[in-house]
Amino acid sequence: MNKSVVLSLSGGMDSATLLLNYLARGFLIESVSFNYGQRHNKEISQALYLVAFLNSVRFPGPNNWRRINHKVIDISGVRKLLVGSALTSSQVDVPLGHYEEPTMKMTVVPNRNCIFLSLLAAYAISKGSAVLAFGAHSGDHAIYPDCREEFVRAMQNVVSVGNYSSPQIEAPFLRFNKGEILSEGLRLCSELRISPAEFYSRTWTCYNGRDKACGKCGSCTERLEAFQFCGMKDPLEYE
Amino acid sequence: MNKSVVLSLSGGMDSATLLLNYLARGFLIESVSFNYGQRHNKEISQALYLVAFLNSVRFPGPNNWRRINHKVIDISGVRKLLVGSALTSSQVDVPLGHYEEPTMKMTVVPNRNCIFLSLLAAYAISKGSAVLAFGAHSGDHAIYPDCREEFVRAMQNVVSVGNYSSPQIEAPFLRFNKGEILSEGLRLCSELRISPAEFYSRTWTCYNGRDKACGKCGSCTERLEAFQFCGMKDPLEYE
Repeated sequence: MNKSVVLSLSGGMDSATLLLNYLARGFLIESVSFNYGQRHNKEISQALYLVAFLNSVRFPGPNNWRRINHKVIDISGVRKLLVGSALTSSQVDVPLGHYEEPTMKMTVVPNRNCIFLSLLAAYAISKGSAVLAFGAHSGDHAIYPDCREEFVRAMQNVVSVGNYSSPQIEAPFLRFNKGEILSEGLRLCSELRISPAEFYSRTWTCYNGRDKACGKCGSCTERLEAFQFCGMKDPLEYE
Repeated sequence: MNKSVVLSLSGGMDSATLLLNYLARGFLIESVSFNYGQRHNKEISQALYLVAFLNSVRFPGPNNWRRINHKVIDISGVRKLLVGSALTSSQVDVPLGHYEEPTMKMTVVPNRNCIFLSLLAAYAISKGSAVLAFGAHSGDHAIYPDCREEFVRAMQNVVSVGNYSSPQIEAPFLRFNKGEILSEGLRLCSELRISPAEFYSRTWTCYNGRDKACGKCGSCTERLEAFQFCGMKDPLEYE
């Protein structure tokens, strides 16, 4: 086992902040973006853009740059297995409004985090990484059963039982809401001496994959609330 | 939930017999072959050949044909996450000899069954299938930690915890060896009035993906032992 962490980089704020957390703690980062046929491929290009930025920065302290090894993994064939989710089908409209509303259940891809964590665990095992980091947070609990502590424990169990050696699954943001995650991110930016505006302009949250963020979907609403919570202007451009 | 079963059809004897088991019990079959960049794509074509055969047969009793809906799912992008396994890399030689020998550890793809079962669970949920069937058997126990009863329980737990509703994971062959699986298959062929030679000639076991089976790898060795156990000549052609 080595001091590296495997994590999924979705292009959003949460996984970007998760990456920053492990970067600040001296881990080598093995990040993965999944192309699973989602409508907003913008997520993946934002992730690449973020990694390129971070790998160009010289951080304070020793071992101070190019610490991220990023892969884009195409699992879009899996789309044929999933029926009727707004995130993967172009025939279903993305619901507007707040995440916690019942309409958001439409965005649930069955067994999603179990699929992603299974794949990431395989990668962590083949890389000998000590940690598999999972970016679930408390804002997700209400609608996604696979974002709860009980799920993280069950996932750790199946990965430990099913392999000779296995990574520790950590979910450091499990009890954080979006505002608290951003607040932690701003603290980490300051610690690593990078501009929070530069960092978060390279993240993407909107469920609609247009040129600019819509500012209206559940995901945008939550993001804007988080920036308001931290008293900072969101550096992203909105429609 | 409906009386359908999701299962992976690898092209081998075990999963073919598993399918037959559920077919005989009146289930609709939602079978999946994964293309995960394995060297022997022959597996996938044998699975298609088997399904075409079974869907052309009129079985005894009501609802008596075309009961298999088969999909081939490409997850070969995942190959980029897996390092150094004989089953997915063309730079590593397939070890000869018996499965139980230490060399066979090389064929372990990390977290493999967890990945497959996660994907199949998503499919079962989106189809409303009552059962997810898993073809693990006792011959696998010695080398694959993800073929044990403890693993099946852990997998059931993570799928139940992570979703609103979930299929029952069944592994009816868990305590069977290869010979006992074949023996069960011969009984099922007789019950369904199909020729066992026709049925098993449409399965493939060899780790080398050549035109004819090698008869020498661990997988072939086990297959031939199973046919010997049942006192039947293997209908496959060998080199």
